[in-house]
Amino acid sequence: MASETAQKLATMSIAADAQTVSHGPCSNMGEWRSQLETVKGLPESYALTKTLVFKPKTPKSQTAVLIVLVALEDTDTPSNLIAKAVNAKDPRMATPDAVQAALGVEPADVSPLSITKENAAAIQVVLDQRLVDSTAKIAVHPSRSDVTVFVAGSEIKSYLENAGVKVTVVEFSLVSVQAASKVEVKKTKPTAKVAVVDSKVEGAELIGVTVKKEVDFSNWYQQVLTKGDMLDYYDISGCYILKPWSYSIWEKVQRWFDDNIKTIGVENCYFPMFVSAKVLEREKDHIEGFAPEVAWVTKAGNTELEEHIAIRPTSETVMYPYYAKWIRSHRDLPLKLNQWNSVVRWEFKHPQPFLRTREFLWQEGHTAHQTRAAAEAEVLTILDWYAGVYSELLAVPTIKGRKTEKEKFAGGLFTTTCEGYIPTTGRGIQGATSHCLGQNFSKMFNIVVENPDWKDGDPEEDKKLLVWQNSWGLSTRVIGVMVMIHGDNKGLVLPPRVAAHQVVIVPCGLTARTTEEERKALLAGVQEIADTLQKAGIRVKADTRETYSPGYKFNDWELKGVPVRIEYGPKDIEKKQVLSVRRDTGVKTPIPLQGLAASLKTLLDTIQADLYQKAKAAYDEHTKIITDWADFVPALNAKNVILIPHCDREDCEDEIKERSKGRNDGDEPEDAKAPSMGAKSLCIPFEQPKGEHALVPGKTKCTQCGLDAKHYTLFGRSY
Amino acid sequence: MASETAQKLATMSIAADAQTVSHGPCSNMGEWRSQLETVKGLPESYALTKTLVFKPKTPKSQTAVLIVLVALEDTDTPSNLIAKAVNAKDPRMATPDAVQAALGVEPADVSPLSITKENAAAIQVVLDQRLVDSTAKIAVHPSRSDVTVFVAGSEIKSYLENAGVKVTVVEFSLVSVQAASKVEVKKTKPTAKVAVVDSKVEGAELIGVTVKKEVDFSNWYQQVLTKGDMLDYYDISGCYILKPWSYSIWEKVQRWFDDNIKTIGVENCYFPMFVSAKVLEREKDHIEGFAPEVAWVTKAGNTELEEHIAIRPTSETVMYPYYAKWIRSHRDLPLKLNQWNSVVRWEFKHPQPFLRTREFLWQEGHTAHQTRAAAEAEVLTILDWYAGVYSELLAVPTIKGRKTEKEKFAGGLFTTTCEGYIPTTGRGIQGATSHCLGQNFSKMFNIVVENPDWKDGDPEEDKKLLVWQNSWGLSTRVIGVMVMIHGDNKGLVLPPRVAAHQVVIVPCGLTARTTEEERKALLAGVQEIADTLQKAGIRVKADTRETYSPGYKFNDWELKGVPVRIEYGPKDIEKKQVLSVRRDTGVKTPIPLQGLAASLKTLLDTIQADLYQKAKAAYDEHTKIITDWADFVPALNAKNVILIPHCDREDCEDEIKERSKGRNDGDEPEDAKAPSMGAKSLCIPFEQPKGEHALVPGKTKCTQCGLDAKHYTLFGRSY
Repeated sequence: MASETAQKLATMSIAADAQTVSHGPCSNMGEWRSQLETVKGLPESYALTKTLVFKPKTPKSQTAVLIVLVALEDTDTPSNLIAKAVNAKDPRMATPDAVQAALGVEPADVSPLSITKENAAAIQVVLDQRLVDSTAKIAVHPSRSDVTVFVAGSEIKSYLENAGVKVTVVEFSLVSVQAASKVEVKKTKPTAKVAVVDSKVEGAELIGVTVKKEVDFSNWYQQVLTKGDMLDYYDISGCYILKPWSYSIWEKVQRWFDDNIKTIGVENCYFPMFVSAKVLEREKDHIEGFAPEVAWVTKAGNTELEEHIAIRPTSETVMYPYYAKWIRSHRDLPLKLNQWNSVVRWEFKHPQPFLRTREFLWQEGHTAHQTRAAAEAEVLTILDWYAGVYSELLAVPTIKGRKTEKEKFAGGLFTTTCEGYIPTTGRGIQGATSHCLGQNFSKMFNIVVENPDWKDGDPEEDKKLLVWQNSWGLSTRVIGVMVMIHGDNKGLVLPPRVAAHQVVIVPCGLTARTTEEERKALLAGVQEIADTLQKAGIRVKADTRETYSPGYKFNDWELKGVPVRIEYGPKDIEKKQVLSVRRDTGVKTPIPLQGLAASLKTLLDTIQADLYQKAKAAYDEHTKIITDWADFVPALNAKNVILIPHCDREDCEDEIKERSKGRNDGDEPEDAKAPSMGAKSLCIPFEQPKGEHALVPGKTKCTQCGLDAKHYTLFGRSY
Repeated sequence: MASETAQKLATMSIAADAQTVSHGPCSNMGEWRSQLETVKGLPESYALTKTLVFKPKTPKSQTAVLIVLVALEDTDTPSNLIAKAVNAKDPRMATPDAVQAALGVEPADVSPLSITKENAAAIQVVLDQRLVDSTAKIAVHPSRSDVTVFVAGSEIKSYLENAGVKVTVVEFSLVSVQAASKVEVKKTKPTAKVAVVDSKVEGAELIGVTVKKEVDFSNWYQQVLTKGDMLDYYDISGCYILKPWSYSIWEKVQRWFDDNIKTIGVENCYFPMFVSAKVLEREKDHIEGFAPEVAWVTKAGNTELEEHIAIRPTSETVMYPYYAKWIRSHRDLPLKLNQWNSVVRWEFKHPQPFLRTREFLWQEGHTAHQTRAAAEAEVLTILDWYAGVYSELLAVPTIKGRKTEKEKFAGGLFTTTCEGYIPTTGRGIQGATSHCLGQNFSKMFNIVVENPDWKDGDPEEDKKLLVWQNSWGLSTRVIGVMVMIHGDNKGLVLPPRVAAHQVVIVPCGLTARTTEEERKALLAGVQEIADTLQKAGIRVKADTRETYSPGYKFNDWELKGVPVRIEYGPKDIEKKQVLSVRRDTGVKTPIPLQGLAASLKTLLDTIQADLYQKAKAAYDEHTKIITDWADFVPALNAKNVILIPHCDREDCEDEIKERSKGRNDGDEPEDAKAPSMGAKSLCIPFEQPKGEHALVPGKTKCTQCGLDAKHYTLFGRSY
């Protein structure tokens, strides 16, 4: 078997990359997936495919050309859209005989690798654009379903093209948007959240989240976001639609943070999104990092613009020339401006919703102060609020600290950060950063005042005072971090403080024998509960949709992560109680109607606290103090972030990164699952280890290089 | 004199455009301006210039080349920046002798027209970019200051270039931003709001607003906005910086409107700012109007993008493909989404802050409904809130109505609007529009559900139901309208409900003889009042800045339009009272400390109501019912908007526009001041004239064409 696979792979010239996994024969995707999940030696991230064969309606006089659909398992691929894509009439699942005749295998064994130069003429392929674009390895099985190989999506395309088969690449998401029209769409069942089983498309059931968080995190994340109604993919790569379910979380973050910064006199404003080339490029060092990602407007209508205009990647160079203009005296200080806006960084790396997007929403604060002390105090105040957004609102623990010289904001004096941790991948993630820019930017942009404290006799050069500046930013990334940490295999889990609906009430127990009177009484009861809770300040939703079953509603709200579900039925009326179900734990508890609002408030607070504690426990458990380098990479591979006594040297950080890259060539312990990414410094935590671990200057040595350690520094693989 | 002027003008080839005004000789700008204001025959809008002559420090061995600065009067042109622009050393005002020698006129008589081919070699010119760009006519005086001509800014440039003089065009706003650095800047006096008199630059004093609203509205508007701290000009034409003073007004509008729309279930979301060309251009009719103004991103870093990407001018084509995807059943209706975002329309017309800008902030609501009735009801609800933003918050009266077929949103079913009126110019201004799109867009984008009411036997074509859609938008334009209506010659006048500070307290009566104890008692008293008012929910600011005089503070807050100023001094302490001063009327009233918060709340309510009433009275007074065409243009020229019985025909609207254009060739009464703009229909008011003016179907005739009138329609010159 292995040699046969190897042969196939050679054909595809992907041998070097491919990993093969043997598993027993199985007849359906579900079993296949569960078996896959138990085997060893999987790539860190992979995506499942579906390969389905259709036969279009064909005049008797002609030979049918079968359509082979190759798509990611979770791409929605209605047969009518396939029909449209290749202009075929009424395609239906091909019979086993037809598949055998065309491809020489059983339907269950069909895979892209079943297609060869020999059989290419009898078929055509519809290929999912998402699959082609996917950076995850694609799981396909060659000729027989008891072997799986992992290849890149683009390689599948090359393979098929080499086989000489007609390939039509389809962006299903876009097609379904654009073309849903021309086809006869039957829509009698709810299809939005829990996809309906299309009886014509066996094996493509999409009920809830179809992959496990711990098995295929990347795919899980995508599914949780789209099926949980947080966002939709957009037809421009790297751009996403923030749907109300996620945007409302952003609104709560905005309100909380905005209220806080206003207490220290920060004012909101709005600067243009455009920057002229000459202004953008004035500060060479600063812009160097952004230049490759700057989007340029060169044309308006049909007119070529004389000067190309950039879209801001951040606003330092947009704003500071005006700071120089506005700040004319120390009396104009402090100047504290903030804006809620979007910025554009046209990255060519793989985009990821919320974490790496080409346009993203954020706030950027830019302040100017007379003294270093005032600037530094503000940096820390803001950092506390950033950490507060995570801990108070999103129930996400972070570690506050200072970035190393290597990782700080280019051109700034120092950067403070709050660093999060994603247990599933064991990777750190930067939460938000608050920079003290020192006087570097004020020097470049000449933001100067006359020193009010200067006296005759003082040195002449002290007469002018460069202002001290800070900048600080928090983006919609916070939502992604929250989802990654709390979500589970049923979908999103939202912390009560940011959930659009904190409680959903589902009327239950209605049957065919329920009288109209009983039904009305129940619905009236539901409404009364909703009104009571709303008056008490709880964000409540009564789900009285008539055409959906309670079970459907349970799934729906679980997918969307509503913290508490309340079930209310005829028996509950009798007992004067409701049944509460926690989304995070699934625990069901009856609660008396008497005092319900107060009980629920307590419950919501408990959930909020529990979510935080759970995440905190995971972070704590996976933060290891390592003093022997031999333990470093194994600890990293065991999904930890690592505190080491460190020498503070940039070179040493580089070596740590290099030495912690996954490789099998000797020095480090071999580990088949070690990802290729090296560890970098996350921060120098403000709270340094104490007691037995306390760093002893001159005595404690750097874990990596053995020189004197200066600080404990947190290292980890990171996003 | 007139013939000499004509000769000059011929040289400049601007004879057709120029208007000349004779006035008596005068020696300074202030007098000149006040005389200008009294003469007749001025262009509708013009800008004053300053022409100043400098002599740079020159080695004795060389002949000094004088620098002639030609700038708009209100451009900030510090001599150090002039020095930088032409690389001259320490330029100072040239002596009368030097001016006479170089240009042959007295310093007071210098104008751009003093520069000729004969004297061009002895001087060089620094020309203000703003002046070159200005679309207002520029007032200059040829050779002697007792005659003024009005020319275009660009023509001054051409004239100078033809004269062979070296011309350096400088964007002072940018230079002052970029270059303030390299020069030795003395900043011992406050210079921000009320510009300091630079003793070196005679005649360039810029104290408060230097032009009168009723004389040079366009210039007044710019000054009020910049000096009132609402915005700053940006180095990309058509883009402006919204400073906190204006942005806070936008925040209040946002909060009020957002709270309202959420009560009807509208949810906020965020769609990407980018649109692919293919999606943007899908709907040809709709995009036709926007195409010439679309900004295109064609490059990221140094990479040419394969597909050019547009920045949204509005989001119909961005959003509706996804509506088609998301709306799968009538159960998904209504869908009510809104976003607060910025859009880009790269207009090449003269930009105007808030009213016509290339990027602007707005909200755009896009909703989908099952029935026409539901859609229509929402259109009107939203319109009421738009009118409410104006009347409740901004104290601006509007007239609600329907746009004519000619003026409605292209592709929509009907457009509703609230129309404002700017008394100073007599022009109407569109406030905000709420469109019922009908089923036109749902047809184009195929947003379809199965009709839940369809029964066997009903026509087959009724089985599918195109959704009914609305879209509605309100932009930062509201701020511009508010400023234009309430502002006066002292600066902004802000309605209390949107003012960032509703009340400012200025400690007064401190003299050299005031003891430290008295001073402390006074400041403590001020703080106590501030605390009391703040607790009562009044937005109050205690202006305890020490280095500014009360007079300076009075001017400062008047310029910024704070509704109520409170003066508090030693005598007030004795009398247990404060002195209140209304910004809108200037009326001063003592108010007892006892019950001050309540008294002030009443006063603020009164001011809010009075501002509205004053604007309403002006609107009412200038809304004329005209039934005889002969009265139409004269009424228009008398700064009225006009209600006429109208036939509802588009052709007739075209004729009205054509016939109301200013011209002197016969048909219409000659009017030297008639602007060239024709009148267009503003709306068909919901509230139609009643009583004696009531329209009698079949009997009342259209004022313009004499055919049967269908509705009273409001016409006017407009923005």
